[in-house]
Amino acid sequence: MDFIELLEKRRSIRNFEDKPVPVALIKEIIQDSIKAPNASNKQAWNFIIITNAEFMKKLSDISRQGFIDSVKRNPDSPLKEYAKGLENRKEVNCFFDAPCLVYITGPTNVSTIREDVGILAAYFMLSATNKGLGTCWIGMGGGVRDKAVLKEMGLPEGHHLIAPIIIGYAKDGKIPPMRDRKEPTILKIIE
Amino acid sequence: MDFIELLEKRRSIRNFEDKPVPVALIKEIIQDSIKAPNASNKQAWNFIIITNAEFMKKLSDISRQGFIDSVKRNPDSPLKEYAKGLENRKEVNCFFDAPCLVYITGPTNVSTIREDVGILAAYFMLSATNKGLGTCWIGMGGGVRDKAVLKEMGLPEGHHLIAPIIIGYAKDGKIPPMRDRKEPTILKIIE
Repeated sequence: MDFIELLEKRRSIRNFEDKPVPVALIKEIIQDSIKAPNASNKQAWNFIIITNAEFMKKLSDISRQGFIDSVKRNPDSPLKEYAKGLENRKEVNCFFDAPCLVYITGPTNVSTIREDVGILAAYFMLSATNKGLGTCWIGMGGGVRDKAVLKEMGLPEGHHLIAPIIIGYAKDGKIPPMRDRKEPTILKIIE
Repeated sequence: MDFIELLEKRRSIRNFEDKPVPVALIKEIIQDSIKAPNASNKQAWNFIIITNAEFMKKLSDISRQGFIDSVKRNPDSPLKEYAKGLENRKEVNCFFDAPCLVYITGPTNVSTIREDVGILAAYFMLSATNKGLGTCWIGMGGGVRDKAVLKEMGLPEGHHLIAPIIIGYAKDGKIPPMRDRKEPTILKIIE
């Protein structure tokens, strides 16, 4: 797909067809993604692929509760009302019942890992769009702290979950319009 | 340009034609970039555009010294030898005499800003490639700490420099081959 078309088609998708995404396809997307530039070519990123719906719901419940608890610890949080709403809706799946969830992870001792994974995730989401899939980065999904669960996910000690990205086929092929963009602020031009 | 072609052509460029990059073109790249997804659609990113060679060399000197000093403060740094080499080569321009340097910046109190800017920077670098330009993220270039200089750059208090990206036309159109990629580690597949 042409890059300009890709920029329009890559929207955050939260409503999916009930159609599985083959793990082989995810691996192709990962192969595209690792062409991303990264600090000192360390390639410190790792991946976890989850297609098991029950396990995803378990991670959703844990992440949801972790989010609610963290908001409670901060009484001034602007997310207070949102968290209160979530508390009463235990059936909510923060991964929107997507057929697949990929975590991009990395070692905590690589100082540039959050930027590196950000770049990689952009590649990942654009590559998925190029293959006709929809994605959404679910920030809340990174809130798993339970060591036993992290071990079950295959995350080594000293690593953390950075980018939880859901993937699937957009319901009825519907791609929502781009959310409003404000004019970017150019702080200064030094010519 | 097709996305797959773009993935091959987007390489880190460190050798440029002596040919200016119009600010209007940079603004077009910024317009592509802000289509990037970002946490809660905050769009907390800002930009600084520099094409003034003298000012760029000043920033290079400051960044270079900041880097050397930070390595000195950490006697176990794996970058010790590299920093020692730099110390003896004061003429080195860490921005590779690129005709343009763009800083993507953001407020320090937005917890997701480093990932957000990582995604945006990927869009920026791909968009530049799509327009026939070469880029390189110069990590060292973010090391400016001098408040007077940051003010001169237009950076507000409470904001920081995140992605320093050089841009220009690759010398003789030469695009280096992709640096080696290792097989990505998939920690676990949960089906």
